Amino acid sequence: MKEERYFYVPDASHQNELPKEEAQHALRVLRMQAGDEMFLMDGCGTFYQAEISAASTKHCLYNIRQTLSQKKTWNGRIHLAIAPTKMMDRMEWMTEKCTEIGFDELTFLRCQFSERTTIRTDRIEKIVVGAVKQSRKAWKPIVNELTKFSDFIHTPREGRKFIAHCYDEIDRADLFQTLQQTPQEEDVTILIGPEGDFSIEEVREAISQGYESITLGSSRLRTETAGLMAVAMAQLSKRNV
Amino acid sequence: MKEERYFYVPDASHQNELPKEEAQHALRVLRMQAGDEMFLMDGCGTFYQAEISAASTKHCLYNIRQTLSQKKTWNGRIHLAIAPTKMMDRMEWMTEKCTEIGFDELTFLRCQFSERTTIRTDRIEKIVVGAVKQSRKAWKPIVNELTKFSDFIHTPREGRKFIAHCYDEIDRADLFQTLQQTPQEEDVTILIGPEGDFSIEEVREAISQGYESITLGSSRLRTETAGLMAVAMAQLSKRNV
Repeated sequence: MKEERYFYVPDASHQNELPKEEAQHALRVLRMQAGDEMFLMDGCGTFYQAEISAASTKHCLYNIRQTLSQKKTWNGRIHLAIAPTKMMDRMEWMTEKCTEIGFDELTFLRCQFSERTTIRTDRIEKIVVGAVKQSRKAWKPIVNELTKFSDFIHTPREGRKFIAHCYDEIDRADLFQTLQQTPQEEDVTILIGPEGDFSIEEVREAISQGYESITLGSSRLRTETAGLMAVAMAQLSKRNV
Repeated sequence: MKEERYFYVPDASHQNELPKEEAQHALRVLRMQAGDEMFLMDGCGTFYQAEISAASTKHCLYNIRQTLSQKKTWNGRIHLAIAPTKMMDRMEWMTEKCTEIGFDELTFLRCQFSERTTIRTDRIEKIVVGAVKQSRKAWKPIVNELTKFSDFIHTPREGRKFIAHCYDEIDRADLFQTLQQTPQEEDVTILIGPEGDFSIEEVREAISQGYESITLGSSRLRTETAGLMAVAMAQLSKRNV
């Protein structure tokens, strides 16, 4: 059985040529030729079965043969907002895994105790696209630029909003239990703090903006594992079985 | 507040000296001295509050001040048996994350389509110990040597046994739904195949040995992500809230 080849082509139905990097991959790595079949993913819910109409050293033109509308496999949107860890590789693998597991939006936060205050979102975007292709996701998660914590929480958002933290003096509900009692269609936004946690003032400010105080359970998790488990909990609560 | 220092000392109550590597860490990295407080983890359910009684360049002796029996935070045992991926780093991070999330035993499998047929379990063991300390787990997961698939499935095991695979022609139940309907105390063993999946003969052989055919859901997951999600599903089904 021939492996199906997938390429990420935003707005694929209005184009007839693979973007530069995808063309390189198709032509130089996979050595595809005119007449070969491929699948295009627009990242917005549609796959296209296409055929290479012409291939040169750098350009790969295609004709679409069939439009394949995809069904989303979970309900409601899952938005993870997380303070990036000091070590970039931990954020990178978390991004890859969250994309495979399934989520909709990723925002990096700049917090009071942040150990990292810049992040190359172009690298993160590449990892997302790679994981979208590898795991054949019909929707590409949105990656947002690093955002100041207070700007983030003061932006209006649909659905339920949660902030995970470790302060015993503030009551915390269990995130997974709460999510399982939430209608599947409702959007969720989950905030995960830096290695040194959110400051207690940040937690209180978020609560005043409608964020619910939560815990991910009794396990002591690293930042990136907390981000991953938050997405896993949301996905397991919202997926269609 | 002073950070609490944790050290892994198997059989800690019958010893009075840190193992070599732990002593090095305490003395050279953390620069601890006689009189300093520390916590010992025996990996079998007990922490000990201890004090350094004597410290030389290479030796770190301790006196135990208090025995702190821990309560397990989940019910039943979670055993993941997985074919190692070609890239070792993927198995290493999976091991770290599964330890943080919480599981009891890890076995590497040698399967028909395995891309990797050797594994340095000493490295994996070190990662487990590091994650046990970092996430303050009272029980250290057991790491087993690489085992032949057929030997593994012919070994009797308590509880429910599952094999995840991608063959449409064999009925598959949803693992998470099944786990949520299973008594928490029941042990679970979950098999995850290599990049090229188990062979269909392996799946049938496992089923004949009482393994239940399962899927992790509609997402197409890499091997290491499948291992991680299997552990996450078991943990979320078995944890005490």
